[in-house]
Amino acid sequence: MSDETTNKKQKTCLQVATNVTEQKHQVTREVRGRNLGLCRGFRGCTVWLTGLSGAGKTSIAFELEAYLVQRGIPAYGLDGDNIRTGLNKNLGFTQADREENIRRVGEVAKLFADSGVIAICSFISPFSADREIARRIHKDADLKFYEVFVDTPLAVCESRDVKGLYKKARQGVLKGFTGIAQEYQRPENPELIINTDGYTIKESAKALIKLLETEGIIPKMKSHENEIAELFVEPSMKAAFLHEAKTLKSIPITEVDLQWIQVLSEGWAYPLRGFMREDIYLQTLHFNSFITDEHTQRQNQSIPIVLAISTDAKTKLDGISAVTLAFKGQPVAIIRKPEFYYHRKEERVSRQFGTTHEGHPYIKMIFEGGDYLVGGELEVVERIRWNDGLDQYRLTPNELREKFKEMQADTVFAFQLRNPIHNGHALLMQDTKRQLTKRGFKKPVLLLHPLGGWTKDDDVPLAVRMAQHQAVLDSGALKAEDTVLAIFPSPMMYAGPTEVQWHAKARMNAGSNFYIVGRDPAGVPHPNKLCYPDGNLYDATHGQRVLKMAQGLDNLEILPFRVAAYDKKNLCMAFFEPSRKNDFDFISGTKMRTLARTGEAPPDGFMVPQAWQILAQYYQSVLGQ
Amino acid sequence: MSDETTNKKQKTCLQVATNVTEQKHQVTREVRGRNLGLCRGFRGCTVWLTGLSGAGKTSIAFELEAYLVQRGIPAYGLDGDNIRTGLNKNLGFTQADREENIRRVGEVAKLFADSGVIAICSFISPFSADREIARRIHKDADLKFYEVFVDTPLAVCESRDVKGLYKKARQGVLKGFTGIAQEYQRPENPELIINTDGYTIKESAKALIKLLETEGIIPKMKSHENEIAELFVEPSMKAAFLHEAKTLKSIPITEVDLQWIQVLSEGWAYPLRGFMREDIYLQTLHFNSFITDEHTQRQNQSIPIVLAISTDAKTKLDGISAVTLAFKGQPVAIIRKPEFYYHRKEERVSRQFGTTHEGHPYIKMIFEGGDYLVGGELEVVERIRWNDGLDQYRLTPNELREKFKEMQADTVFAFQLRNPIHNGHALLMQDTKRQLTKRGFKKPVLLLHPLGGWTKDDDVPLAVRMAQHQAVLDSGALKAEDTVLAIFPSPMMYAGPTEVQWHAKARMNAGSNFYIVGRDPAGVPHPNKLCYPDGNLYDATHGQRVLKMAQGLDNLEILPFRVAAYDKKNLCMAFFEPSRKNDFDFISGTKMRTLARTGEAPPDGFMVPQAWQILAQYYQSVLGQ
Repeated sequence: MSDETTNKKQKTCLQVATNVTEQKHQVTREVRGRNLGLCRGFRGCTVWLTGLSGAGKTSIAFELEAYLVQRGIPAYGLDGDNIRTGLNKNLGFTQADREENIRRVGEVAKLFADSGVIAICSFISPFSADREIARRIHKDADLKFYEVFVDTPLAVCESRDVKGLYKKARQGVLKGFTGIAQEYQRPENPELIINTDGYTIKESAKALIKLLETEGIIPKMKSHENEIAELFVEPSMKAAFLHEAKTLKSIPITEVDLQWIQVLSEGWAYPLRGFMREDIYLQTLHFNSFITDEHTQRQNQSIPIVLAISTDAKTKLDGISAVTLAFKGQPVAIIRKPEFYYHRKEERVSRQFGTTHEGHPYIKMIFEGGDYLVGGELEVVERIRWNDGLDQYRLTPNELREKFKEMQADTVFAFQLRNPIHNGHALLMQDTKRQLTKRGFKKPVLLLHPLGGWTKDDDVPLAVRMAQHQAVLDSGALKAEDTVLAIFPSPMMYAGPTEVQWHAKARMNAGSNFYIVGRDPAGVPHPNKLCYPDGNLYDATHGQRVLKMAQGLDNLEILPFRVAAYDKKNLCMAFFEPSRKNDFDFISGTKMRTLARTGEAPPDGFMVPQAWQILAQYYQSVLGQ
Repeated sequence: MSDETTNKKQKTCLQVATNVTEQKHQVTREVRGRNLGLCRGFRGCTVWLTGLSGAGKTSIAFELEAYLVQRGIPAYGLDGDNIRTGLNKNLGFTQADREENIRRVGEVAKLFADSGVIAICSFISPFSADREIARRIHKDADLKFYEVFVDTPLAVCESRDVKGLYKKARQGVLKGFTGIAQEYQRPENPELIINTDGYTIKESAKALIKLLETEGIIPKMKSHENEIAELFVEPSMKAAFLHEAKTLKSIPITEVDLQWIQVLSEGWAYPLRGFMREDIYLQTLHFNSFITDEHTQRQNQSIPIVLAISTDAKTKLDGISAVTLAFKGQPVAIIRKPEFYYHRKEERVSRQFGTTHEGHPYIKMIFEGGDYLVGGELEVVERIRWNDGLDQYRLTPNELREKFKEMQADTVFAFQLRNPIHNGHALLMQDTKRQLTKRGFKKPVLLLHPLGGWTKDDDVPLAVRMAQHQAVLDSGALKAEDTVLAIFPSPMMYAGPTEVQWHAKARMNAGSNFYIVGRDPAGVPHPNKLCYPDGNLYDATHGQRVLKMAQGLDNLEILPFRVAAYDKKNLCMAFFEPSRKNDFDFISGTKMRTLARTGEAPPDGFMVPQAWQILAQYYQSVLGQ
């Protein structure tokens, strides 16, 4: 029997075996897709970049690969670098070898696609017939194949000439070079044409990412990766929306409710699209994070964002298909298909705050609120404005991202505060910037982000804090050119380790990469001072520790806070050194109040003098009441 | 210039480019590894299975691939089926072609390995030289290569002859067939030799899995996948251990503490290896799950398993390197490097129970307990025995797994209970078995698993319940041949949606695949009946819902419970139908107690008569007190 016949026989046997093993492969494939939380039945695919040498194929491929891998989507690039030096090193550049080169790449790409990977091939692949073979190989295996023509004009490619190949080709050293001595056959029906001239690589790759999204190969981008979805009605629809809102039954909301609507509508809690329905509420309480059918990637969400209504209101609204939320009689938003569920206040408060003590200011508000919760996606008529002279500081997550881009920030670090800034804070922020610069960032930008929603009565009011912060900025203690001072519109809950996650997550949505966290963040004294030996509601270290272990904050790095205090020896704020603790003075809010009352100034170097003036005035005015 | 020269020039240019792009690849690789939570620097590798036709290479490869993919580790099989029909379809079976076949596979495997995948190649690859080429390709790319010799004797392979190839080779139809007409060169130094004769495919694959674990390629198997790690001291070390334990300072523990030590030491809470240290405690409270450096896969853990000690004890032990836990003066366990941390009881109770009410029986116990917690890995001297005549029912997770294997169970469904069984329960379990059979399971086994640790005073005691359960089994209402009656040694916490996760997770560790959950699992009335309109501590639907959304229970399917009640029309227990609700009678514990007191029997078909006798006797004895 000839070798030829043996080949045929063995191949037939293989074919039979293939059908059996194909079934087994199918099961494994399904598990693979499920593991990745990707679209059902995801099997991988091949993206085939064709174009002249120097067109930008490999750069785009790298950008795409890095992007996908960063998102946890398996991807792998095949190009001359890893193919010509390995699998195809026994091929040259003759016509037949070029054909075989592309055929083999097509076959290998198919294997990668079948293994659940997005194979990204970057090859000049100048001939339509060869590209057609690669496409056919995929079609026969029922795998998607995207031919992407990187359409950079020859002149541009030649002017780039990164590898010096065009020069050699023009000199006649390289023969048969595509575009010079050999035809490049432009694709007739590619799935995508990318023009790289005048675009950055990122922009070019974006077109490809969009294609994969549209095709359902990869899920649409989530939160921080993309624009944050806002919940506002299209301006052109506003009149019709208001008209509808007035015909619906309505729920009167409080100022704090309105603050939460601002938070939701601007996208701080993205991907949350409205007040929580019960499934997300339960996940929030039990897991401090959630997934949904739509968002299979786990999202951090530690605090319930809910709307409480009275039993009466609930009884009147039961079974309704849409309801208007109205503030002081004016429609603000509509919830469609609202879900009403019982507000088990004691349980909610226990799980959220770790106490049920009604002396806690936010808990008190919860207990005084309604016995039912109403959940559902929000449509909000327009931006919430407070007309208090501070609206210019109220930037949305998208506006902040835009701002950071304008400033050419290559990283953003956020600092949340609800108290006046002293020079210890400034020191900390300068130090953080220094650390980031050391790590190679060229332009770290500080998001100085005081909380601007509801706070307890004895906290310094927002207007005073903003004036104080602005005075610090104006003094130059923080550099204006790499600082953004803006208001975080959320109410304050005083929920310690639970709330600090919310503070971090909202800043991640606003484009922050780093989050500074101190001791006892979002903490307060326990309303019952005897409950714990330290008198605090939360252990001072728990906030940082829980935040570091929290889920859904993978794109945010937590920077622990170093405590600063007044160094009496060096007459300035400095990082506290336990070894010479007697040299340090911690100047508390109470102490500042006392100083203001007696008209004394704090020690030199504690706070920018103009900023102290603003604060002293406020403290005196309070004492005068 | 010749084609040859052009080739060389172009190749040199490629080489230069490779160095630049290699750096970019490196970054992507690191992200890939991080995404997978795999060993740092994980880059994929190649497992090369060589051996005769019919040796079992592909079967083992499939088993390994399925196992890895199931665990979320990227893996892909290359074999004749997907190579000979595609990439290498232009190769025959001549010597040169066989060589080129193996070379190309080696190159493709290298690409997969480089992409972060475990490439599993199954090829006869009879020649040492060819296998050496494949190995060299990987070595040059700094990628691991494991040659695995599937050493099945020719006679065995020939007797299997799945593809009928040996027959054809013997008949001379197939020429040059390896093992018959052509030499198979046995590997001289393979990384592993697998003997398949007399072993199942799973067993053979296990050897390979072990190799990958030992090599640090994949993390060691977790919980349910492997044997559950127990915390007992080696029997040979027992004397020395006891000697040491007696020299250490000791903490006296309570009976409930001892029950938790039993739970931990037998592996019910695996991978927890002792009383919680604070980092895991915090994750438990906030996320109901945890990860550690060692266990990067998220583990469900909803309830704190902690050891409380008094402030006095803590003060005496501070700074100690090891401590003995003693029950009634007898050493039970040692904790090394114990971690002491403050027991913020109110916070712990709030987050765990959703209330702080001291009328709750377990909460009361917590408040009465110590103000400090001590965490650390446990070494336990031996199995905890209670000598109450019920120890034979106390099977460990490993013993249960062994038992299920003996029974040839192909799936296990668990039913947790802390009350007597009536025929409604039996109906439910029969119905579940029917459903599982419908889904294709041949031998579903029921784990009837009453809770055997501490319960509140008015629950029916364990001994009575066990006698009652045994009577139900003996009556045949549940089939003994596919039921395992065993005790779950955990104390009961009455913590509703939080605790139900614990009940499910522990059964997952014991090898269950399905978990039956009813309304208001682990629930109790609120100690303050006025707190909620329904009078219960937890919403009746929350347990099921939270359990379905819980993390770290991916290998357990939750089966919601259908409520059964006494059907007065048909005189039997039946699934409740709301449409004819007046036909149904819910027979509560209180009602059973009343019946027992008056000497009345419950309606026919409510409970197995012998089982009712046991229960009635108990109720009468309690009333007599």
